[in-house]
Amino acid sequence: MSLRGLGADPRCRCIETESRRIGKYIESVELFPPSPHCKDTEIIATLKISGKEICLDPTAPWVKKVIDKIIANKSP
Amino acid sequence: MSLRGLGADPRCRCIETESRRIGKYIESVELFPPSPHCKDTEIIATLKISGKEICLDPTAPWVKKVIDKIIANKSP
Repeated sequence: MSLRGLGADPRCRCIETESRRIGKYIESVELFPPSPHCKDTEIIATLKISGKEICLDPTAPWVKKVIDKIIANKSP
Repeated sequence: MSLRGLGADPRCRCIETESRRIGKYIESVELFPPSPHCKDTEIIATLKISGKEICLDPTAPWVKKVIDKIIANKSP
């Protein structure tokens, strides 16, 4: 089941978030700031190989670390 | 002109990066870690209204601040 709705949906995309540290399986990460459609930031990772999209918890320290690593030009 | 190639391209997506601080026009941000297709992290912002995709410089302090704001549940 995909946890991501269509981009045009006037509501939040994420229903639940992944608690396991899946950093090394991440191919890319998309960040959606708070908007009229969703009051909280949403972070959606696309996984390598499967291309599956997984919602991550913006308040989880490991998620922040993964993003900091990517910005620092390292693999997550 | 779009500065973003197709996702399946076996090369970097960004040709050049935006130097202006366009944080408040950003609808979402996508992060691509280094991969066999591109040795450096790429950051692509989608703009509000136009939906235009713009490459950002991962080494620019304002880009890091924008991402930190989004993770902290604030508008960029």
